[in-house]
Amino acid sequence: MAVKVVVLVGGVGGAKLAYGLARVLPPEDLTVIVNTGDDFWHYGLRICPDLDTILYTLAEVVDKSNGWGVGGDTVHLLDALRRYGEDTWFRLGDQDVATHLLRTHWLREEQTLTAITARLAAALGVRVTILPMTDEPVATMVNTVEYGEITFQEYFVRYRWQPTVKSLRLDGIEQARMTDAVCHAIEQADIILIGPSNPWLSIDPILSVPGLRTLVESRPIPRVAVTPIVGGRALKGPAAKLMVELGYNPSPLAVADHYGSVINGFVYDRSDGQLSMPLLHTAGFETIMKTENDKIFLAETVLQWIKDWHSIQA
Amino acid sequence: MAVKVVVLVGGVGGAKLAYGLARVLPPEDLTVIVNTGDDFWHYGLRICPDLDTILYTLAEVVDKSNGWGVGGDTVHLLDALRRYGEDTWFRLGDQDVATHLLRTHWLREEQTLTAITARLAAALGVRVTILPMTDEPVATMVNTVEYGEITFQEYFVRYRWQPTVKSLRLDGIEQARMTDAVCHAIEQADIILIGPSNPWLSIDPILSVPGLRTLVESRPIPRVAVTPIVGGRALKGPAAKLMVELGYNPSPLAVADHYGSVINGFVYDRSDGQLSMPLLHTAGFETIMKTENDKIFLAETVLQWIKDWHSIQA
Repeated sequence: MAVKVVVLVGGVGGAKLAYGLARVLPPEDLTVIVNTGDDFWHYGLRICPDLDTILYTLAEVVDKSNGWGVGGDTVHLLDALRRYGEDTWFRLGDQDVATHLLRTHWLREEQTLTAITARLAAALGVRVTILPMTDEPVATMVNTVEYGEITFQEYFVRYRWQPTVKSLRLDGIEQARMTDAVCHAIEQADIILIGPSNPWLSIDPILSVPGLRTLVESRPIPRVAVTPIVGGRALKGPAAKLMVELGYNPSPLAVADHYGSVINGFVYDRSDGQLSMPLLHTAGFETIMKTENDKIFLAETVLQWIKDWHSIQA
Repeated sequence: MAVKVVVLVGGVGGAKLAYGLARVLPPEDLTVIVNTGDDFWHYGLRICPDLDTILYTLAEVVDKSNGWGVGGDTVHLLDALRRYGEDTWFRLGDQDVATHLLRTHWLREEQTLTAITARLAAALGVRVTILPMTDEPVATMVNTVEYGEITFQEYFVRYRWQPTVKSLRLDGIEQARMTDAVCHAIEQADIILIGPSNPWLSIDPILSVPGLRTLVESRPIPRVAVTPIVGGRALKGPAAKLMVELGYNPSPLAVADHYGSVINGFVYDRSDGQLSMPLLHTAGFETIMKTENDKIFLAETVLQWIKDWHSIQA
């Protein structure tokens, strides 16, 4: 019997696990639910950085050194914008803009982000289901000491996540609705995973879509997060820095604690020793994914471990 | 005393004369009024082919072999669109898209096309005034034997002006208003020129903006068209083919006749011999502009000839 897996992800870190899962599961059994709190408008284009990262990764066209953007992409358009005197703090690759352009064009034609994402994925030969967390616009707003409240992309890209974060706010989240596709995927899932993404910046927006957290918690299945924190540091990006600024100890336990009853299992990195977390199934694996094989191995290991602790028939 | 020159133009042909004029006149004395009937929406971008051709030509970044587009431009975005399964009949250069993107972005911010054009020109260091014929959208619709009524770009680019034209229609022209800038330029002009552009496809839309033709005709100054037809053929594009299809003899005289009382002077190519046109000042010059020097020479020659037959103080 097929095991239906749903994985919640943000950008680069989550994309690695999603890639591994896509390599070990039949495409029809994997659904990737993606954070859209990072989405923003830029020069009239609707840009969805996490959706793009997942799309490019699963389509195997991603820039492997960055983990985002299209491999080998050029920036001639961006150079031309600069010649027009524009501030080009957000990298717009020439091939990448084709994605933004089509998405924006179709959004203006009143197609849903879910439908558009499916269309883009199909065109690139991706058979895994990629779902935005919601079709409504949600914007992660970052309240900083230095600049006051700024958009996520200003915080993350323009200021390279250097500002000190006081708090986070999800603009538009009250109006966001869980899509039928997301609801169906969660309801049908045999396993729900949370990728090694930033819990506050990438996963919280997904779980904050009204009804989504409750639906996940209601499912009597393995719900397992993979740590984004190893040895007190983030594998990538601002997770550890942010945790300190928000008053947490940057540790796997604090991440597991933050997820609370959303999860019943947690995978930490084996370099962190033997961690015991009350009420949770836990395991320490090699979670740092550098190579293609690392991604496949972690996906396989996590799935096998879950099957061992739970009575799922593969 | 300064001689204020206004030139009405379409794309490549008109751009050549505009370039020559820009090289021989102080920038503050030259205004180029550009056809916008070719403008269209494509993938959510507002594209203004004639404005772009004039802009790139005067900014000296134009692709010199085509006469349009940015020199040395790449098409990586277009290739990516093709990978998404899109029909890429309209060439979108990577640098060129920066222009479309900014223009569209600013249009959506309710800036006028006139203001946007000025902003783009200033950023590229163009000091000559470039004005769209109107700020309202006007679409030249081409009624063809083969495909029925199609947009100008479908006719011109997609079908490479091969369809047989039955008639032309300017969609939206009734709602178009002459801008203050166009009105002022014409009212202040000492000389009005019409570039060697397609009279039906490029110049008629300009003259059809309500009030514009009457205003031009009312000015007691030299109003001179330069022929786009030499030796019974168009220098470029469909002018001669179109004239035949619309029932005209493709000759300089038919062009002059078409302009009627809009002009009081006409420049034909000297290879067409000695042409006499009742009521018009006429002259035969070398009108074929291949080199930079050809453009400057024609501009100088026409201006000098006009000054000789009219009492303008330079």
